[in-house]
Amino acid sequence: MEDTDTIAAISTAVSESGIGVIRISGPDAVEIADRVYRSPGGKKRLAEVDTHTIHYGFIVEPEAAGNALQSGISDASEKSADVIDEVLVSVMRAPRTYTAEDVVEISCHGGILAVTRVLEAVLKAGARAAHPGEFTKRAYLNGRIDLTEAEAVMDVIESKNRFALQNAVSQVQGTLYRKIEEVRKEMLYQSAHIEACLDDPEALSFEAYLPEFSSEVQQWTKELSALLATADSGRLMQEGIRTAIVGKPNAGKSSLMNLLLGEDRAIVTPVAGTTRDVLTETITVGGMTLVVTDTAGIRETDDLVEKIGVQRAKGAIERADLIFYLIDSSTYIDTEDQEILNLIQGKKIIILQNKTDLHTLTDERQIRRMASETGLGDDIPVIPFSATEKTGLDELVSALRTMFFDGKLLFNDEIVITNARHKELLKRALESLKQLSKSIDSQMPEDFYTIDLMSAYEALGEITGQEAGEDLVDEIFSRFCMGK
Amino acid sequence: MEDTDTIAAISTAVSESGIGVIRISGPDAVEIADRVYRSPGGKKRLAEVDTHTIHYGFIVEPEAAGNALQSGISDASEKSADVIDEVLVSVMRAPRTYTAEDVVEISCHGGILAVTRVLEAVLKAGARAAHPGEFTKRAYLNGRIDLTEAEAVMDVIESKNRFALQNAVSQVQGTLYRKIEEVRKEMLYQSAHIEACLDDPEALSFEAYLPEFSSEVQQWTKELSALLATADSGRLMQEGIRTAIVGKPNAGKSSLMNLLLGEDRAIVTPVAGTTRDVLTETITVGGMTLVVTDTAGIRETDDLVEKIGVQRAKGAIERADLIFYLIDSSTYIDTEDQEILNLIQGKKIIILQNKTDLHTLTDERQIRRMASETGLGDDIPVIPFSATEKTGLDELVSALRTMFFDGKLLFNDEIVITNARHKELLKRALESLKQLSKSIDSQMPEDFYTIDLMSAYEALGEITGQEAGEDLVDEIFSRFCMGK
Repeated sequence: MEDTDTIAAISTAVSESGIGVIRISGPDAVEIADRVYRSPGGKKRLAEVDTHTIHYGFIVEPEAAGNALQSGISDASEKSADVIDEVLVSVMRAPRTYTAEDVVEISCHGGILAVTRVLEAVLKAGARAAHPGEFTKRAYLNGRIDLTEAEAVMDVIESKNRFALQNAVSQVQGTLYRKIEEVRKEMLYQSAHIEACLDDPEALSFEAYLPEFSSEVQQWTKELSALLATADSGRLMQEGIRTAIVGKPNAGKSSLMNLLLGEDRAIVTPVAGTTRDVLTETITVGGMTLVVTDTAGIRETDDLVEKIGVQRAKGAIERADLIFYLIDSSTYIDTEDQEILNLIQGKKIIILQNKTDLHTLTDERQIRRMASETGLGDDIPVIPFSATEKTGLDELVSALRTMFFDGKLLFNDEIVITNARHKELLKRALESLKQLSKSIDSQMPEDFYTIDLMSAYEALGEITGQEAGEDLVDEIFSRFCMGK
Repeated sequence: MEDTDTIAAISTAVSESGIGVIRISGPDAVEIADRVYRSPGGKKRLAEVDTHTIHYGFIVEPEAAGNALQSGISDASEKSADVIDEVLVSVMRAPRTYTAEDVVEISCHGGILAVTRVLEAVLKAGARAAHPGEFTKRAYLNGRIDLTEAEAVMDVIESKNRFALQNAVSQVQGTLYRKIEEVRKEMLYQSAHIEACLDDPEALSFEAYLPEFSSEVQQWTKELSALLATADSGRLMQEGIRTAIVGKPNAGKSSLMNLLLGEDRAIVTPVAGTTRDVLTETITVGGMTLVVTDTAGIRETDDLVEKIGVQRAKGAIERADLIFYLIDSSTYIDTEDQEILNLIQGKKIIILQNKTDLHTLTDERQIRRMASETGLGDDIPVIPFSATEKTGLDELVSALRTMFFDGKLLFNDEIVITNARHKELLKRALESLKQLSKSIDSQMPEDFYTIDLMSAYEALGEITGQEAGEDLVDEIFSRFCMGK
């Protein structure tokens, strides 16, 4: 019942806007829609229209007893009173729909009350309120998409930058699914072959087959390792590069921000609340997302507050993937800069030489020497920039790409792992393949092989959902937004 | 150009959600959509599909030069890289569309970045970013709707309760328009008749015609007055009844709120910011909206703060349409209650006798006597209620309806004026009709009549937009939300 009844939800954000969409899916979707739909002439039934067509009309209160059309409208004075909204109704019949079931989408005026009342009417007419993610869950349960494609749907919605969006859209289209299933198919074939050898050792020699099998295992290991290796980039791409800004007061945090914001039509999202009392904001620049924590300027005073400030700065630096170290090149560097450099030892660092439009008192050479003397090495990027003259952004973007994405970010058909669950399961599969290699090397009996092989096979199957339990599936979809 | 080019905007609320819709309207809507749309097989062109049909596919970056389909995709590696999102595209050809122009709606994943990037692609492909309300403005300029219908669109979106929504939807369907135009048509006919009499007094006697004309004027006055009379209800219905809660501390404000909230799946919207330092919230109960200001409990202290509190309470009471006076019936009434009663003299009042589930120390009779002694009259509703036992709500709703809407709220085909602009113009029209009646009574020359008649005719025409200047039209649509 749970998975075969007809469900409905508001699929757009509920806020005053031009359009709101209520989605209905399930075997009775069209019938239920007919109970609340009235065409301008009053004659049209959605049950009779072609699939993938759009119909103008009105949503009306359904008769409490059921089908308004069949029972007729008794009271003429009710006619105008029971109209809830003027709408467009899209009818899409199974299986070419989002859920692979019959789907009806009602596009009404985007008022909070209008969408709410249309949904209420649909529920009154016999639909059940959908759980978060339930439409996509049905697409999965009905076999239209696998788990990676389903998970990518939420990644698309939550994407913060174009590369994350692109990767998510690519996974919605099944790129990861096909890669994983390709390996799984080969594993299954090899497993069957081993079984056959065990069953009929006279006809099929496992000994003779072993080199081929061993080379297959190595190939899988290589492919899955390559996939796993993208996971770090994937996290940075999707969640953003955790960036701490450090520097003396007035080193130029705001001019850095202006530069980042002004040039790339950046999307700035203030993070809800504060993270451990340190404000962070999300900036998208050059297609990369930076989650920026400002620790600059917190060494201003000499009292208790300062100590807390330094503590926080240290914490932020520790958690950061990247340090932007801001230097005001129109002033001299001093021991305070030394201290800051000590603080950021061992992290990925980009030094930003700010205010290049002013008279330079500290140049790149001096900065490099100080960095080198503090033991930070000689290859730290030092990027001169000026918000006034709008210079330095291209160099900064390029340094970021080199540092985090081997200079590139457009993967074309490369698949990037962005999901922590996928990463863990890839690790598990690789662990099993490692065991398998060991067993082969130490010439263990053949039946040991299939155990590890099947364990790798199942780990990969959990990624695509072929081997996923109900609990896991429920958990994944519960993280979805309402109406998807 | 401004009104004939092709425009596009995001029509749903931009927030992470299941679906986002980008709307395109204008002569090139389908052609522009084709520049960013790619069907799964890559062959389908939206230019060739039937009207009011839905098409699955992808939004891709348009070729900078123009049409991607015509120029072909040069680089195979670009194929997956340039997909922005997986979408459904609705194609609706003029004139049966929202704007009466060709309209394409792209339904994509409801991510902030996804909708933004799809819109960017559409703009890059040749559409212009629409101004707020521009789609509806085009529907008006193209003659599909009149001004009252256009204005009602925003009323639908902003409706706070079902009666306001119902009235707005009814006006979207043209009920007010038809009423006004009916009167205007008669006015025009009468005006023509007067002109004919003046032109050819030998053939047509104005004297003989005067009684009929006079009775027509009276009839119009009656009809327009009836319409104007609905404006007060209309304001209360649409904007809500400004309600001040007064009472001693602990009289039971929160239990009243719980009662209001619990029983009607009420919509509570905290008003942004504070109104003159007094917090208000909007509650919908029994289909009516109350904009509630809490002044209860502010007489707690005896110092400066209290004085400011009383000042504020007085202000809130003065601005209120209604006072909820809360009495805790499990305590005795005292001089403080007397003072409160003095404060609310002359307002519409509902006395709420709270905590009827506890032992009663103050009963309805005592409350009535006190009210009567303070000069508040004998007919103030006193409603016993208890949040614990969930009693009193029906009585409260019924008292509200009696007090503000003559006991009813469902008007069936009655038109309710909710728009301040319409109200002012109705007043102007009635003023002209009054002048006209005077002229008739004092037997002024005939040509005086047509001046006043035409002035009423024009005022009504401003309501429907037949006589509205460009500035007025611009101003009305500038108040619309983006994407509508």
